[in-house]
Amino acid sequence: MFDTNSLALCATNHHALTPLGFLRRAEEVHADRPAVAWRDHLWTYRDFASLVRRMAHWLRAQGVEHGDVVSVMLPNRPELLAAHFAVPGLGAVLNTVNTRLAPEEVAYITTHSGCRLLIGEAQTLAAQKDLPVPVIKLCSAPGAGDGLDLFDAQLPEAALQEAPTAETDAIALNYTSGTTGRPKGVIYTHRGAYLNALGNVAALGFTPDTRYLWTLPMFHCNGWTHTWAVTAAGGLHVCLDRVEPREMIALISRHAVSHMCCAPVVLYMLLEEMQSPAPCPVTVGTGGAAPTPALLSRMADLGFDILHLYGLTESYGPATVNAPRFAAGTPLSDRARHMARQGVRHLTTGSVQVVDASGQPVPQDGRTVGEIALSGNTVMAGYYLDPKATEIALGLGHFRTGDLAVWHPGGALEIQDRAKDIIISGGENFSSLEVESVLHQHPEILLAAVVAAPHPKWGETAWAFVEPRAGCAPCPETLDTFCRAHLAGFKRPRRFILGPLPKTATGKVQKFALREIAREMSDGH
Amino acid sequence: MFDTNSLALCATNHHALTPLGFLRRAEEVHADRPAVAWRDHLWTYRDFASLVRRMAHWLRAQGVEHGDVVSVMLPNRPELLAAHFAVPGLGAVLNTVNTRLAPEEVAYITTHSGCRLLIGEAQTLAAQKDLPVPVIKLCSAPGAGDGLDLFDAQLPEAALQEAPTAETDAIALNYTSGTTGRPKGVIYTHRGAYLNALGNVAALGFTPDTRYLWTLPMFHCNGWTHTWAVTAAGGLHVCLDRVEPREMIALISRHAVSHMCCAPVVLYMLLEEMQSPAPCPVTVGTGGAAPTPALLSRMADLGFDILHLYGLTESYGPATVNAPRFAAGTPLSDRARHMARQGVRHLTTGSVQVVDASGQPVPQDGRTVGEIALSGNTVMAGYYLDPKATEIALGLGHFRTGDLAVWHPGGALEIQDRAKDIIISGGENFSSLEVESVLHQHPEILLAAVVAAPHPKWGETAWAFVEPRAGCAPCPETLDTFCRAHLAGFKRPRRFILGPLPKTATGKVQKFALREIAREMSDGH
Repeated sequence: MFDTNSLALCATNHHALTPLGFLRRAEEVHADRPAVAWRDHLWTYRDFASLVRRMAHWLRAQGVEHGDVVSVMLPNRPELLAAHFAVPGLGAVLNTVNTRLAPEEVAYITTHSGCRLLIGEAQTLAAQKDLPVPVIKLCSAPGAGDGLDLFDAQLPEAALQEAPTAETDAIALNYTSGTTGRPKGVIYTHRGAYLNALGNVAALGFTPDTRYLWTLPMFHCNGWTHTWAVTAAGGLHVCLDRVEPREMIALISRHAVSHMCCAPVVLYMLLEEMQSPAPCPVTVGTGGAAPTPALLSRMADLGFDILHLYGLTESYGPATVNAPRFAAGTPLSDRARHMARQGVRHLTTGSVQVVDASGQPVPQDGRTVGEIALSGNTVMAGYYLDPKATEIALGLGHFRTGDLAVWHPGGALEIQDRAKDIIISGGENFSSLEVESVLHQHPEILLAAVVAAPHPKWGETAWAFVEPRAGCAPCPETLDTFCRAHLAGFKRPRRFILGPLPKTATGKVQKFALREIAREMSDGH
Repeated sequence: MFDTNSLALCATNHHALTPLGFLRRAEEVHADRPAVAWRDHLWTYRDFASLVRRMAHWLRAQGVEHGDVVSVMLPNRPELLAAHFAVPGLGAVLNTVNTRLAPEEVAYITTHSGCRLLIGEAQTLAAQKDLPVPVIKLCSAPGAGDGLDLFDAQLPEAALQEAPTAETDAIALNYTSGTTGRPKGVIYTHRGAYLNALGNVAALGFTPDTRYLWTLPMFHCNGWTHTWAVTAAGGLHVCLDRVEPREMIALISRHAVSHMCCAPVVLYMLLEEMQSPAPCPVTVGTGGAAPTPALLSRMADLGFDILHLYGLTESYGPATVNAPRFAAGTPLSDRARHMARQGVRHLTTGSVQVVDASGQPVPQDGRTVGEIALSGNTVMAGYYLDPKATEIALGLGHFRTGDLAVWHPGGALEIQDRAKDIIISGGENFSSLEVESVLHQHPEILLAAVVAAPHPKWGETAWAFVEPRAGCAPCPETLDTFCRAHLAGFKRPRRFILGPLPKTATGKVQKFALREIAREMSDGH
């Protein structure tokens, strides 16, 4: 029998897991390598670590202490990245705020989180008023003199703590976008952030040669923890104030971008503008909607490799990854069918299952629909100040995501639809995704979203909201003919509404808004 | 102030870190992909997981219980890899035994570890007798009928535990090779093994497409934890009974090997035999001696990329990595000078420092010699049943390695010599490595080892033990002229002794043996 008294756990061989160590190491071993690019500036890891320490010093001077919450409402500029190290480096908790939220939502979050202060910039703060905490405006550019300028190398620096008291201490508080009800404050720990970052290094292949274009907002799940993961690898963060296709194309060329993450809608925008292939292959992590065959084909022509990811705020971003290896000559339709799957368990996710109402795994038959359930170190530590919601979410031994999926042999998930997006027409259930997938094959359609509308006879019918490609104006009759050719009659949309689709900050179509429109419009039917 | 009562740590969001999860995931998501190749056999991850469960069932039937130690003395065959999951999967501790140990050393280890049983094969067990534990001989090949055949798919399987009781429970007990004194039992934990494996996935770039040739013995630090790391990535383990150049070359071609690890001496052997480049680029992790310019140049011609690694049993294998990015056209001499460094801190190592006698870091000036000191989760949990040695090793807040090095700007280490390998001649200190490096440039020398020999006048002088290339027989006078042309007079070897060099199981030259020979021979001076 092994004598367990020989286990001598001590400070030499037991360190708290924390992403703070990633920056310490990057400064140690990649000091002269490029860390952050923004507009015309480029900072090394030595520079960036200084920026982080200046921010920490400044925060401390504002009275920020161990255990405080610090809110930051910024686009992807260097100070937001720096806050991912400066705030936990003081033992405080980072609360990133979606820049597109309405003033009352920001007021709710700053009140609910009890944050010490809110950092923003002119644009994100313009609409805010009467917030319950001090609001600090950053300069519009280094040296511009119109706000707090942490790029000023003359400012004093504070030393960061090497590690939290316990690795399960909170590192971040991320409010869900709250399409229904009040936003909920999702708690991340140092341990979870460290592990998910390492998992992402493995899944996306981040190395010191990585040049990561920040199309994904850092305020969204801390950029799926890539804020920490790219730093762990010692790669370059290419910051981007806003997701604008021409600017993206310019940066992809300028920095020979190797990786980016975004919703498919951003890729559609990019395709509209991009004239020639990227200078070197770009790995794109995408999620929120399945990439269509047309998207896959055109992205491949331009030098983009697509990974399909799935996760939610409660899982620190990606919990599954679809990075298939297709044999040469695999037909596009087969590749697309496979790529529509959300993929298999991420390396650092504890378990991914599709379960029935009683919590039992459904068969891996690609047909039986169940709910995706997750567990492991990269599931949130709870909803802030909401023990009831926390108990519901975590008390079952796994976290029920609310997403419905089938489970394929081999463990790959394929989301069928959010529960509320299943359309039930004349007693027949079908998925709005299936209808959208057909519409996305139409050459004149940029983006389509299908929702259920109430119907006096059938209960519900499908309505399609369609954003045409630039210069196109497909007529509803043409679209109807197209749908009849590809779909069972009960699945075809009964109405086509053309125009730009409402989107969230992360580029997801706001189907709840479309559902409301459909409900209101059908009242007059 | 953040309300810590909101942290709801529970089974849903807190799993023990353990490499056991890597196999569970590989079977889940890579079931049909190749896991293990050996001789003419190829097993998928589904097959391999069954082999592991058959081994677990068989072990349990032998009375192995939670907390037992199981010893395995095997070359790199599939059962040794399987033991890395089957043994901890029963909550037991794996003790891998170097296949080249003398019977009295094996007797010491099986006694000291208190193991339940020892698994070997005909060749490794031939010399063993009167061991204090049951000894089990494996079959010579699947179906051969001359020993325990775990490949028999008819054997029953046992379910593995998903995780240890605590992630800091012991997973492995690795005895140091003990060049001086009794071997010490180095304890690894599930947590340390999990983290070092993830660090290796990142450092070596393991993916599901990795084809890893097992030239490094798995009994050596659990194969630097690559047993677990390649499984984490879902790559292919190419097993190899013994390190024989022609067999290696055949396997590199047959499996399009992407990765291998070994001491430089194995690479010298490979170069002697290899006629044409590898079919695809091979990443080679090497350590134990610095790769010479000649080695780097010839390996590059054959399609091998060299990483220089440094670590010890006490650090789960690699603690530093040198994976330089050379600009095109960097002269070979510059590359070699840089590649002689052991590199920078590994991603999952907590800290790497070079310290003076008082434990203070020496300047990063590339000149001041100090001792390499490590800390973090990948430092051993202690020496088994040796609280005194454990206290000495771990009690200082870092683990002193006994290796002397300079610290370069940017954090890269360069080992100067083991303390005992410094030669002091006429009051002048110099490094035997420097003399060896000169000898390795001689076209007729395959391998050289330089040690101190006692000298009545100078205290010590350098003696060179030289293994010539096949068909070469350099005369001592020629070698002396060559050394005079490249070295200060006091550094040149006073004697050249030609013949094959004694090596450890991992291919390191046994300088202690040469030192003894030099001492004995110089007595007659």
